[in-house]
Amino acid sequence: MESATYTDDTTSGHLPEIRSLVDRLRQGEVRALSRAISLVENDAPQARAILSACFPFTGRALRIGITGAPGAGKSTLVDRLVRHYRTLRRTVAVVAIDPTSPFTGGAILGDRIRFQEHLSAGSSGSDPGFYARSMATRGSLGGLALATADVALVMEASGRDVILIETVGVGQDEIEIARLADITLVVLVPGMGDDIQSLKAGVMEIADIFVINKSDREGTDRVEQEIRTLQSLVSASAAWTPPVVRTTATTGEGIDALAAAIAETEKWMRGEDRLAERRARHWQRRLEAMLRSELMRHARRNGLAEEKLHEYAARIASGQDDPWKLVGRLAENLLAGETPDSAPNPK
Amino acid sequence: MESATYTDDTTSGHLPEIRSLVDRLRQGEVRALSRAISLVENDAPQARAILSACFPFTGRALRIGITGAPGAGKSTLVDRLVRHYRTLRRTVAVVAIDPTSPFTGGAILGDRIRFQEHLSAGSSGSDPGFYARSMATRGSLGGLALATADVALVMEASGRDVILIETVGVGQDEIEIARLADITLVVLVPGMGDDIQSLKAGVMEIADIFVINKSDREGTDRVEQEIRTLQSLVSASAAWTPPVVRTTATTGEGIDALAAAIAETEKWMRGEDRLAERRARHWQRRLEAMLRSELMRHARRNGLAEEKLHEYAARIASGQDDPWKLVGRLAENLLAGETPDSAPNPK
Repeated sequence: MESATYTDDTTSGHLPEIRSLVDRLRQGEVRALSRAISLVENDAPQARAILSACFPFTGRALRIGITGAPGAGKSTLVDRLVRHYRTLRRTVAVVAIDPTSPFTGGAILGDRIRFQEHLSAGSSGSDPGFYARSMATRGSLGGLALATADVALVMEASGRDVILIETVGVGQDEIEIARLADITLVVLVPGMGDDIQSLKAGVMEIADIFVINKSDREGTDRVEQEIRTLQSLVSASAAWTPPVVRTTATTGEGIDALAAAIAETEKWMRGEDRLAERRARHWQRRLEAMLRSELMRHARRNGLAEEKLHEYAARIASGQDDPWKLVGRLAENLLAGETPDSAPNPK
Repeated sequence: MESATYTDDTTSGHLPEIRSLVDRLRQGEVRALSRAISLVENDAPQARAILSACFPFTGRALRIGITGAPGAGKSTLVDRLVRHYRTLRRTVAVVAIDPTSPFTGGAILGDRIRFQEHLSAGSSGSDPGFYARSMATRGSLGGLALATADVALVMEASGRDVILIETVGVGQDEIEIARLADITLVVLVPGMGDDIQSLKAGVMEIADIFVINKSDREGTDRVEQEIRTLQSLVSASAAWTPPVVRTTATTGEGIDALAAAIAETEKWMRGEDRLAERRARHWQRRLEAMLRSELMRHARRNGLAEEKLHEYAARIASGQDDPWKLVGRLAENLLAGETPDSAPNPK
């Protein structure tokens, strides 16, 4: 049976190159960081060796997720938080997976320039303590959450103190991405009547802090009231009642209070191993996803290449083969170390 | 090595019961249909045997996906399409996976009553030719698309002519769900400025028909213009240029034109094996997902139970173990028929 070891079979030739790349990104070389992220995001053959090499240098950064409906002003809020942390001399990286975000919509370079302009306004150049990256919203099912987690890990290894992860809180994917954060902010705005309702599905579960942005608008009290009502229904017995913070990201109003709430939440999270427990849960889901993908990789190497799958799929689509029976047979053969071709002829 | 065969090991005791259930749902018994769907949705031990028993009775229904931003009026549109097809005496089932849909928000029973009321207004009772079901938006990554496909399959086996699948076109999950349809309608509305922009990511790829709903509002021409512009950029060489249909679902305006566009698209899809090819592509993705999940099922039975994964995850979270090396070892052992416990001690 072919070895399923992660790095040895596919990347042994790349190892010195990978070490040098990781060394350089750890020394703060932006080009090395960007290249490592691209390799990881595209699941290049070197990806896992890079991640493995980055892993020992992670675990210290605080990962903050920012999620909410489109139009809630998440990007502006992220912008403000970046400025806040940079003023405190903390290094920051942003990963945006929000299809409605101007960061994600444009080219990666475009984003970075936009961000840089904000930060270097009045100064002479770009800020080496800040780095931003957009993620594509494509990819295989579940692949986006995994890729985001990987990108965040490389960012962490580059020595960032704070990683901000911006996403739209609608689909399951986005909730899964929010879960990779240590602290998740759920951003709401007044006047979007069905906002809380529409986010309800997963939102009470993932919110560590509620942010009411655009709180200069009418209806702020009502939104807060709705949050409190939902909280009293859902989390009466919860150990942590998420604070509600009002902001107006466009003017910067409330950002200090938000940062204070984040700091307080972080303190609570770090107490009594709560952060460790959350990270363990995150790693458990990630481990499962990694294992699933590794097993499929093995399957592809062992006769279940694209064309073979397509052939099976065409048989199923035309009613010639039962997919459940077929999958049972394929799995059985794979696990017995045989190639799928050695399966008895379907039906 | 334990057998990985799908039905034999876990459900042999259930088989007569399952056959009876599928017989009854095929005869139009709503309670049997509901029960089968629940078992399948919850991935009960009998689920795969039920799906396998339903499979031979599928392939004839037309599956129409309806996707678009929250507030685009998708539910009302679905409602109108249901009435349209019922008037033509075609049987219909709806599966709604839209977290902002009133159908999904409420209880399943609530939905069905709401739907039934619409349909039986003025008549004496409920309509046996119509069935609606909501899906929860929870579940494991990628699980929702798979579960929706399974539910649609059971609905098909119950002899429905048309399956409508309503979803919010934002996340990757939703795009994946839209892909299980034969024909996908993308619903837009005028006046939601960034609508097309925000949907852009996957939308041009999945749209077979564009619907501009609420087209009595100002800005309809502009939305259509934007669609045409995007089309000219993206799909100049495409074999099919998705038609653009204007509707006002609240009044029923444009529904006949929409149904005509659907019929024309269906005719084109059925020509030259285009439908068969699309369904084969769908089955290929589904087959992969099924195989992934079957391999994980095997892993869980062979020492990678929840607690074990949690133990590994805690080690990773505290930096004691490298996840990439660990996954490589776990996969190798699983595929060699050993339990993960026989792995050499990490590090």
